Amino acid sequence: MSETARAAVLEGFNQPLAVRTFPLALHVEPGAARVRVTMAGVCGTDVHLWRGELPLSLPVILGHETTGILEELGSGLNPGLNKDWRGEPLEVGDRITWASSIACGECFYCRLKSQPTRCLSRKAYGISYNATEAPHLRGGFAEQILLRPGTAIFRLPADLPDQALLGAGCALTTAIHGMERAPLAWRDIVVVQGVGPVGLAAIAVCRDAGASRIIAIGGPRHRLQLAREFGADVVIDVAEFPLPEERRQIVLKESGGFGADQVIECVGKPEAVNEGLELGRDGAQFLVLGQYGNAGNISFNPHTVTRKQLRVVGSWGFEPRHLNRAIEMLQAGWKDRFAAAVTHRFSLDNVNEAMEHTRAWRGGKTVIVP
Amino acid sequence: MSETARAAVLEGFNQPLAVRTFPLALHVEPGAARVRVTMAGVCGTDVHLWRGELPLSLPVILGHETTGILEELGSGLNPGLNKDWRGEPLEVGDRITWASSIACGECFYCRLKSQPTRCLSRKAYGISYNATEAPHLRGGFAEQILLRPGTAIFRLPADLPDQALLGAGCALTTAIHGMERAPLAWRDIVVVQGVGPVGLAAIAVCRDAGASRIIAIGGPRHRLQLAREFGADVVIDVAEFPLPEERRQIVLKESGGFGADQVIECVGKPEAVNEGLELGRDGAQFLVLGQYGNAGNISFNPHTVTRKQLRVVGSWGFEPRHLNRAIEMLQAGWKDRFAAAVTHRFSLDNVNEAMEHTRAWRGGKTVIVP
Amino acid sequence: MSETARAAVLEGFNQPLAVRTFPLALHVEPGAARVRVTMAGVCGTDVHLWRGELPLSLPVILGHETTGILEELGSGLNPGLNKDWRGEPLEVGDRITWASSIACGECFYCRLKSQPTRCLSRKAYGISYNATEAPHLRGGFAEQILLRPGTAIFRLPADLPDQALLGAGCALTTAIHGMERAPLAWRDIVVVQGVGPVGLAAIAVCRDAGASRIIAIGGPRHRLQLAREFGADVVIDVAEFPLPEERRQIVLKESGGFGADQVIECVGKPEAVNEGLELGRDGAQFLVLGQYGNAGNISFNPHTVTRKQLRVVGSWGFEPRHLNRAIEMLQAGWKDRFAAAVTHRFSLDNVNEAMEHTRAWRGGKTVIVP
Amino acid sequence: MSETARAAVLEGFNQPLAVRTFPLALHVEPGAARVRVTMAGVCGTDVHLWRGELPLSLPVILGHETTGILEELGSGLNPGLNKDWRGEPLEVGDRITWASSIACGECFYCRLKSQPTRCLSRKAYGISYNATEAPHLRGGFAEQILLRPGTAIFRLPADLPDQALLGAGCALTTAIHGMERAPLAWRDIVVVQGVGPVGLAAIAVCRDAGASRIIAIGGPRHRLQLAREFGADVVIDVAEFPLPEERRQIVLKESGGFGADQVIECVGKPEAVNEGLELGRDGAQFLVLGQYGNAGNISFNPHTVTRKQLRVVGSWGFEPRHLNRAIEMLQAGWKDRFAAAVTHRFSLDNVNEAMEHTRAWRGGKTVIVP
Repeated sequence: MSETARAAVLEGFNQPLAVRTFPLALHVEPGAARVRVTMAGVCGTDVHLWRGELPLSLPVILGHETTGILEELGSGLNPGLNKDWRGEPLEVGDRITWASSIACGECFYCRLKSQPTRCLSRKAYGISYNATEAPHLRGGFAEQILLRPGTAIFRLPADLPDQALLGAGCALTTAIHGMERAPLAWRDIVVVQGVGPVGLAAIAVCRDAGASRIIAIGGPRHRLQLAREFGADVVIDVAEFPLPEERRQIVLKESGGFGADQVIECVGKPEAVNEGLELGRDGAQFLVLGQYGNAGNISFNPHTVTRKQLRVVGSWGFEPRHLNRAIEMLQAGWKDRFAAAVTHRFSLDNVNEAMEHTRAWRGGKTVIVP
Repeated sequence: MSETARAAVLEGFNQPLAVRTFPLALHVEPGAARVRVTMAGVCGTDVHLWRGELPLSLPVILGHETTGILEELGSGLNPGLNKDWRGEPLEVGDRITWASSIACGECFYCRLKSQPTRCLSRKAYGISYNATEAPHLRGGFAEQILLRPGTAIFRLPADLPDQALLGAGCALTTAIHGMERAPLAWRDIVVVQGVGPVGLAAIAVCRDAGASRIIAIGGPRHRLQLAREFGADVVIDVAEFPLPEERRQIVLKESGGFGADQVIECVGKPEAVNEGLELGRDGAQFLVLGQYGNAGNISFNPHTVTRKQLRVVGSWGFEPRHLNRAIEMLQAGWKDRFAAAVTHRFSLDNVNEAMEHTRAWRGGKTVIVP
Repeated sequence: MSETARAAVLEGFNQPLAVRTFPLALHVEPGAARVRVTMAGVCGTDVHLWRGELPLSLPVILGHETTGILEELGSGLNPGLNKDWRGEPLEVGDRITWASSIACGECFYCRLKSQPTRCLSRKAYGISYNATEAPHLRGGFAEQILLRPGTAIFRLPADLPDQALLGAGCALTTAIHGMERAPLAWRDIVVVQGVGPVGLAAIAVCRDAGASRIIAIGGPRHRLQLAREFGADVVIDVAEFPLPEERRQIVLKESGGFGADQVIECVGKPEAVNEGLELGRDGAQFLVLGQYGNAGNISFNPHTVTRKQLRVVGSWGFEPRHLNRAIEMLQAGWKDRFAAAVTHRFSLDNVNEAMEHTRAWRGGKTVIVP
Repeated sequence: MSETARAAVLEGFNQPLAVRTFPLALHVEPGAARVRVTMAGVCGTDVHLWRGELPLSLPVILGHETTGILEELGSGLNPGLNKDWRGEPLEVGDRITWASSIACGECFYCRLKSQPTRCLSRKAYGISYNATEAPHLRGGFAEQILLRPGTAIFRLPADLPDQALLGAGCALTTAIHGMERAPLAWRDIVVVQGVGPVGLAAIAVCRDAGASRIIAIGGPRHRLQLAREFGADVVIDVAEFPLPEERRQIVLKESGGFGADQVIECVGKPEAVNEGLELGRDGAQFLVLGQYGNAGNISFNPHTVTRKQLRVVGSWGFEPRHLNRAIEMLQAGWKDRFAAAVTHRFSLDNVNEAMEHTRAWRGGKTVIVP
């Protein structure tokens, strides 16, 4: 093994990432792991981070959706008997993925409120680690990544390609967590606002979870086609129906006249929230998945929540068990559709082109193959 | 019995109510009832209606919180065996109250979504009936009121005075319904925003339902004293702490540093919603009870809902079973506190003075004794 | 129309039904309806009733799963505007079905506990009406049936044949109600004990509602084949594996080693309960659907419930909204499978042969075509 | 400090405990702690263990309810900054208690099913550790106890005496866990079967959690008096009403005619389950708390569960957060009542007398003061 590794670093907001070389730690501490990255997804969140829309201490090696080959284990994740998060045997040479965040397990949110995604000392690979601090390699846009003790590692089954994992990315785990906090009732009618990665993942989850009818709103046309493949019964093209009221009329017609039982916002623009609140029936559940970045304020009438007896639910990030569920779901029939969502591959040296593809919303999912 | 009855009618928004005389129907239809009003509450909603803040077809006899003496039954509410909503014997001469609204039991919301408060043809005494249409007398600010078949009538126990019922009013049933939609978990820490009738009722319900700590925010001082009597552990006077951030710091200190588990908005001003969302911990539940009237828009950041993983719940009106619960609760130790909340009584002729007392937020609850 | 109608009457337990002729009421009261029966299902419950295993006041016209043609309406179900339970227009000549029971809507269970299936004065067609009392014709094994005011009538869409409705029968509505009381979580692993009508319906509902894996236990072979068609992933033939411990080992193997998340008992023999409690993982939910009749006691160790932290749920009958859901589900892709489950048809005169087919567990569903 | 410690050891079922002397480990490993026991409760479970009614590998130092003084910390529970489970500073010399069990946090039940009380490698102090294995001192009936890394330690506030903790014991944490699995709805009517430690704790929790009426069944008279002090509204003395049917009639009368909304079995005799199922209304919840030991089978009719639409819930042990809740509850007004429940104190040398007191059901709670 070489004694250095290259990685793409965000050094200034709205500036090109720089590929830098970092020393590789000679020693992997007990419980930690060194992984050769095989594929890393470029996520919409990377674009938010690049723009400075979430708190960040620069420089940072980006990349929080990653697969790789386990090359070195410290003194073993579980001393003597290496096992992955699910308890399956884990060996050097295995292909793996992992949950991007580590929660402390000890704070108010972890212990008392069962909300590790709001852990007071949660840190995420590719987001929360300053690249100047040893051991530096804490992001996926790199040849090597060093995983801390406590990382939830999952050995990947041979029949589940990197591309399926990355095609799903953190969009799928985010949708799975959101649906846990705001579960569908069996045969609910659902509106999914947005057909980006989170929207498609939400459609897949709703289809898998017993929705009776899924109405997707978004564009462009090729994304709506994907929405159909992921399970949407009805798609509404925002280019064809540019006015919210037009779209609302279609939703009413397609949902028996009263609106959906559940609306899932996966757009990311704040104004989608106001549109969404009017797409559900009285008493509907409204899951806000798209407002991960702080994209500003809207003019909002809280009387709507009271009058319509709404239930508005937020969800942040995901836990290891949601990644476990995502892997289960991919294996149970979804892997081909998600793998097919990966349309562009770039080398580490072309990382800025990859970022630009994602920013400009071109094609499907873009990945880095270092 | 006289063949006419007097009633206070809202004929124009923001104008004095007029006391008019209406003919009494000679015949009470099967299932209907004629009641001599003994007491009617003036509710904040009456002020909203008077100002034109809710849809209304004028002229309307106001008054949706009422007690009275049952003077005539049609062919019997249940032919042959008159019973009240709870199945208890009901006789002419009994003192009664009733749910202000009737749901159809047959529409989409009644049948399929278990939400009779959003019934498509729901009508409320004192709000939804045009006084020009026979039999006219469909509001509580009147000597007589005529109840339609299907009204949920409750015979009042002898030891439960009118004043306790009216002191609770629809604020208590509204709070009970709200807490059903957004239930406390045992030993939750609660913030109640507002110490008007709904706020006090919410405090009472939270105290009765196992809250571990109740922090009330509002004013003026005499209302905060009531809040303590209804069960608040901590009160925050908005006159003393005029800045939301000051109040937030107190809430954090009083809730162990992270904010409340549940926040109940009972203020009615839209900006209270933004303040309230910051008073709960991550993952908190936020119950919007105060936005019954449409009081306009706020500048709102939906990212808050996602980042804090909030659960925002609306609730509208109440069902007969919530009035049943309110009566139970009053009998089980709460009646004196609610009865004491009634501080002013006016005759029907002084109805405008009663309205003004409520509008100007003077004293406690104001009632009409026709 | 003729002025009499023939019907099959249970006059003595364990004795052949007798076909008797009853006068047809000259006048259909307001809200009531007269229906010409087109098809009536013979249900396992009919065999229980025939054996005297449920309380019954003889003589009774059996038949609680029925379709027919609406021949006469009283003064209209909804005066002036006849509508079915869903609010759709209803006309003489329409093909309909209806919920077999009517709840009072007024008792302790209906009003306060939201459990109309335990209504204190609930009566079911084909079960609760003594045939000696006018208007006699209150069961489905008849040429004509008279529906009381308050019956939940559903107009059948043209593309939904009687046979699909009867193939589903009250087994499907029972399963739907049960799953409402003990809902699946998304991707739960389920064991269904029994592959009779209730078992198949439970399999269908679990498949539709997002189960990740369904393991069916029962027999004989042709029923297990049906179980696969209704969505079972694994079937265990009790003839091949006669010992509960053998079956438990298969379930453990097929559920990842710990047992199912949910076990649904649809066998009817009390000892199935003890077997079922061991087929779920610790913390599993166990839905008892099969113990509708009182089939006696078992030797039972309640320590199991504590140690395994189980959740054991009972469910009784169904409400109109469950029939609504069943019709929705049939229309949404299930109708052919349920229609194909009807394997035998008999005329009213051969009703005892139909009963014997059901009792002897021959073929699939047996129906009467009067 | 002395280099040995004495402890009471169960060496043979149904035989007197023997007080033995064990060497004290010279070195406390990182994360572990050495504690001088100040008080240890004798629990009904100790009697079950003594009788051999639960699986046990002898010899065992009994004692799973304990308070003590922290005398030595390994390299610190949290290296550098010692904190207790709640994050509060922890120093040598502090008075503490701890959760009796440690879950692995990694197995199927811990990770995927959120049920650490069913952790596959859970071990409890005073129950699961063989005293022949170093470091031996893993039970509370001892001068010293050695706590493993990962033990959930709680520093005790100065105003919360040992006696309050031990008066509550694991009965309170068991009741708290049970009520989490089978929560009361606000103003539920509750029957608590049994007025031993678990029964009293269940009464306290129900009173605190918003029950509208609590009916306790048990004896003898002095325990029923305690039941009243802990919050029972009605007590039924089994000596006065020896027949289940008599007791059922009283429960029906005291619960409005239909039975309780929730029944909590805290008796421990299996036949209490059959009685309890008949004390709830249709649709009631039945929480089985008393069947911790395997006390044998009953003749049971599963039809009851279906017909009454019951919800039967089991609960096993407790988690650290339930102990946290118990401490909160004691501090919030319950400590005096629980402290007063401790009626007998014995030295370690008189441990067999203490066991006999508990076995013979004499007085209130018995404790060891080593």
